[in-house]
Amino acid sequence: MAADAHATSLPLAMLLVFGAAKICGEICEFLRMPNIVGHIIAGVILGPSVLALVTASSVREFAELGVLFLLFRVGLEVKPSDLASVGKTAATVATLGVIVPLAMGYVIYRMSGASNIESLFVGAAMVATSVGITAQVLASMGLLSAISSRIILAAAVIDDVLGLIVLAVVSSIAQGGINYIQLGITAFLSIAFTVFVFSVGAKTVGKMLPKVERKMKSGDSQFTIAMILLFALAWLASQAGVAAIIGAFLAGVALSETVEHRVHDLAQGIAELLVPFFLASIGLALDVSVLKDPATLWLAAIITVAAVVSKLIGCGLGAWPLGWPDAKRIGCGMVPRGEVGMVVAQIGGSIGVISQQAYGIVVVMAVMTTLVAPPLLQWSFRSIIKAPEEAPLRIE
Amino acid sequence: MAADAHATSLPLAMLLVFGAAKICGEICEFLRMPNIVGHIIAGVILGPSVLALVTASSVREFAELGVLFLLFRVGLEVKPSDLASVGKTAATVATLGVIVPLAMGYVIYRMSGASNIESLFVGAAMVATSVGITAQVLASMGLLSAISSRIILAAAVIDDVLGLIVLAVVSSIAQGGINYIQLGITAFLSIAFTVFVFSVGAKTVGKMLPKVERKMKSGDSQFTIAMILLFALAWLASQAGVAAIIGAFLAGVALSETVEHRVHDLAQGIAELLVPFFLASIGLALDVSVLKDPATLWLAAIITVAAVVSKLIGCGLGAWPLGWPDAKRIGCGMVPRGEVGMVVAQIGGSIGVISQQAYGIVVVMAVMTTLVAPPLLQWSFRSIIKAPEEAPLRIE
Repeated sequence: MAADAHATSLPLAMLLVFGAAKICGEICEFLRMPNIVGHIIAGVILGPSVLALVTASSVREFAELGVLFLLFRVGLEVKPSDLASVGKTAATVATLGVIVPLAMGYVIYRMSGASNIESLFVGAAMVATSVGITAQVLASMGLLSAISSRIILAAAVIDDVLGLIVLAVVSSIAQGGINYIQLGITAFLSIAFTVFVFSVGAKTVGKMLPKVERKMKSGDSQFTIAMILLFALAWLASQAGVAAIIGAFLAGVALSETVEHRVHDLAQGIAELLVPFFLASIGLALDVSVLKDPATLWLAAIITVAAVVSKLIGCGLGAWPLGWPDAKRIGCGMVPRGEVGMVVAQIGGSIGVISQQAYGIVVVMAVMTTLVAPPLLQWSFRSIIKAPEEAPLRIE
Repeated sequence: MAADAHATSLPLAMLLVFGAAKICGEICEFLRMPNIVGHIIAGVILGPSVLALVTASSVREFAELGVLFLLFRVGLEVKPSDLASVGKTAATVATLGVIVPLAMGYVIYRMSGASNIESLFVGAAMVATSVGITAQVLASMGLLSAISSRIILAAAVIDDVLGLIVLAVVSSIAQGGINYIQLGITAFLSIAFTVFVFSVGAKTVGKMLPKVERKMKSGDSQFTIAMILLFALAWLASQAGVAAIIGAFLAGVALSETVEHRVHDLAQGIAELLVPFFLASIGLALDVSVLKDPATLWLAAIITVAAVVSKLIGCGLGAWPLGWPDAKRIGCGMVPRGEVGMVVAQIGGSIGVISQQAYGIVVVMAVMTTLVAPPLLQWSFRSIIKAPEEAPLRIE
């Protein structure tokens, strides 16, 4: 019916974002750049920086669902034992990858003349790696099982828990002193959630799934169970204070040894449709007009470089015992901050300790580290896979 | 990170709606009722009528996308020639299926003491079939290629164009006289769009697809092209005044003879996830508190019965030459009004000619005709497929 006037915008928004992401992706492939860089650039073009045709909020739900499925699908490719075997190295990588960016960000922003607390927030916004981009690049090159890939994924989970604790500490300080009880609860919940799902989850799922499945009458019951586990863990993760995507990733890991290939196929359809929205939404968040002031532009550039360098140094040092090639790969894989840094800045804004300028700088840092990661990854992994565009062992 | 506070609600809403829909679906299968009745009932339970845990607007985008993929997937199973061969019968079915409900709804509502124009709107809201439910039931029983199924699908497309013209006429009358030029443009655009996509679309797609595909470097390029066509036609349909789902259906039909099986699989993953949201959203729209007044309750019951009976009579008469069994099937298939009727009522509300009471009655009618359709279809098709639960030739 003519009548669904309120619905008109949905197909158009889908068409613009999906179409532009794919076209820019094609152009990037043609220029031998990673496809997903094009997806992010499509967001920049459609967003407030250039055409202002689409707002980030209009595709927010699809973007959120897209990144959940991205991490879920990556989790499906990773066995719990794969992560456990790299646990120690990953913990060192994550810890140093939190300390170095926090310190560097704080010092640089403080030197620019900002207040103590605002500098702490900018440092905190530089802490948490957003593993979605890295996971997508590694998956599209068929490299998820490489040792460095497994360390990156495990370190991203630990990094997220540490980032949460840093944010809790910084927020407490901003609101006038550390509440140790609150902090203890946050730390306990997030660690307990991750450890519990990781250690108990996969075994339980392996035992329960066939039983539940036998009792269900509808078709594709494994897919139904997988979806329920995905949403449940994503929700519980966010309740425990960790990112929803960590829950989605752990749901995938828990299911990786149990589900049949059909679940992979169905989840891939969803990811194929929605991941472009996640990538484009990163670009949509960028508004280059904040950079009109040359001083801001310079500060943003310095913070962005610091964000890249500090992760390379911190994570690279943590992975040093594995030798330079893997240390380099792991450092590059932990560079993207994506949406996580922006959310930290938003919280700083909501308690009134971070300026519009600092927020703008954090967004630029988040988008730029994300844009720079795919070429860095391609470069650092080039010795493992010489010509990724000729042999794309894609996730299926 | 802890920080994505604004995102917390998404996984929870997904979990509640998807989980409840699947659980209620299982219960319905156990009671030998159609699965999708359970999905709608899950919406009623989660919505304002019972628990008030989820609002229709919080899952609106997923529901809209879900019904687009539902119709797209059905379109993929239907060849253009299948529809063309039943064109004449479908046109008669659609025409009588518009006139009888409009007349019956108008007369009954007028007799209840309502104004002329309000009664016209209630009649108009009873016109347009929402083919999503029927398509889902037929697909799940593997009956999409039956002659009656093809007539239902073709008639639903024509019905939508006619319903649009009825709505345009009724709206003009409500706003003080018919604007014939505007009306002519609306009618022309909607008919031209449908005829053009239908006659030219499939051939063009068949020629263009392999050429475009060869030029694309990314994986799954057929899927990408299919999605862009889907969103483009859904958007153009809504611009031409027809429902977006008609565009999605026609995109599927245009691609049905061209795309490889992989596109079906990927689209199915999306449909498996999102169709439950479409079904649940029908139930979420229902607020039984409008029925507290016994007079309203009675009127709603009479209008609902009239909505069912008038489609059975109108469409059944149109399909009479095919004999009683097919006439019965086609009549039952055209019964559900779904969201389309509600949208007509919303437009009536927005120009101030329809009361809250009439709106509530239309919503009840739309939900009840949708709930009653699956059992009616199962009954009317039982001679073709004796035990659908034992031989579910599902769409794959």
